[in-house]
Amino acid sequence: MKFTPHLQQLLSALRCLPGVGPKSAQRMAFHLLDRDREGAGELVMALSMALESIGQCERCRMFAEQSLCPVCADAKRDSLTICVVETPADVIAVDEAGSYRGRYFVLMGRLSPLDGIGPDELGISLLESRLTEEGITELILATSATVEGEATASFIAGLAAKQGIRASRIAHGVPMGGELEYVDSNTLSLALSARTSIDPHY
Amino acid sequence: MKFTPHLQQLLSALRCLPGVGPKSAQRMAFHLLDRDREGAGELVMALSMALESIGQCERCRMFAEQSLCPVCADAKRDSLTICVVETPADVIAVDEAGSYRGRYFVLMGRLSPLDGIGPDELGISLLESRLTEEGITELILATSATVEGEATASFIAGLAAKQGIRASRIAHGVPMGGELEYVDSNTLSLALSARTSIDPHY
Repeated sequence: MKFTPHLQQLLSALRCLPGVGPKSAQRMAFHLLDRDREGAGELVMALSMALESIGQCERCRMFAEQSLCPVCADAKRDSLTICVVETPADVIAVDEAGSYRGRYFVLMGRLSPLDGIGPDELGISLLESRLTEEGITELILATSATVEGEATASFIAGLAAKQGIRASRIAHGVPMGGELEYVDSNTLSLALSARTSIDPHY
Repeated sequence: MKFTPHLQQLLSALRCLPGVGPKSAQRMAFHLLDRDREGAGELVMALSMALESIGQCERCRMFAEQSLCPVCADAKRDSLTICVVETPADVIAVDEAGSYRGRYFVLMGRLSPLDGIGPDELGISLLESRLTEEGITELILATSATVEGEATASFIAGLAAKQGIRASRIAHGVPMGGELEYVDSNTLSLALSARTSIDPHY
């Protein structure tokens, strides 16, 4: 005996969500069908609406509902600096920090040859054409502080160097307010080796 | 700066899934929009189809696409025994074990007053009316071996006793093929106290 056909289909469709295996799919399907049909209806609406209306900004690959995202469409932004990040969430995070007023470029991932993610998947050619055409003066590499993130950053820095554009990497070290005893040893040894000199001002 | 309105809506709609918080919702939304639009489309289809076609069997509360589920509609099944389980998945599990040929009753949960789940949510009145009307001779309580599952079982056993119907609980103990050293101590002490005598056959 098995579940009814439509339930089987729902179970296998839920598996397309990242991190959802057979057991979680079952739990989700039962919850939606038995306890939250209203929420399920809203999910259907929101997802089909999102699929229809959300595309990528044609300049920075951020999710956008027009051809340009709000940042790229904003003429007041500094158009000579590009901050390269991995995900749309990173754009929000950098923007909320409040000190950056330039443009972005969203890779939608990071170089990971084993998962089949190479320069093409990250839109590197689009980034290169922006570097040539827009007269960019600085490229800030804000990819994550992981092995793949570092590899991606140094790959893109190489491209920038070919075009004579200054590439910089965001600083890594002890976070603000971080107590030294709770900081992991990798971060701490990096913070030590990347120490900066203090100019005394009397 | 925030995400676009439709993306915000999608993020909040995904939160209706059990076990999905803000971070997982973001991960799911980005995955669907950026890497698996086809899967997302299938999910929309499957979910709306399921919402439309899947209801509950009017006799046993199992998910069904007609008014009766396949088990209740099967005239060859023993109609005098009911096995009470917590979830539709349990029906499949008991049925695949192959030794039970009676009918089922699915509680869709277990008594849990703190979560607002009482007898009404579990369809206990439907079960009671079946006990009176169908001439049931035995009620097998196959709820889970947790505190709530046991409470639910003894609550239903009380109802059966009132109507003079024999209620039984599935056996708990060391699983088949289980090595004693890997069995947890609760199960082991239960298995000891619920020991059965062996009749020697020479």
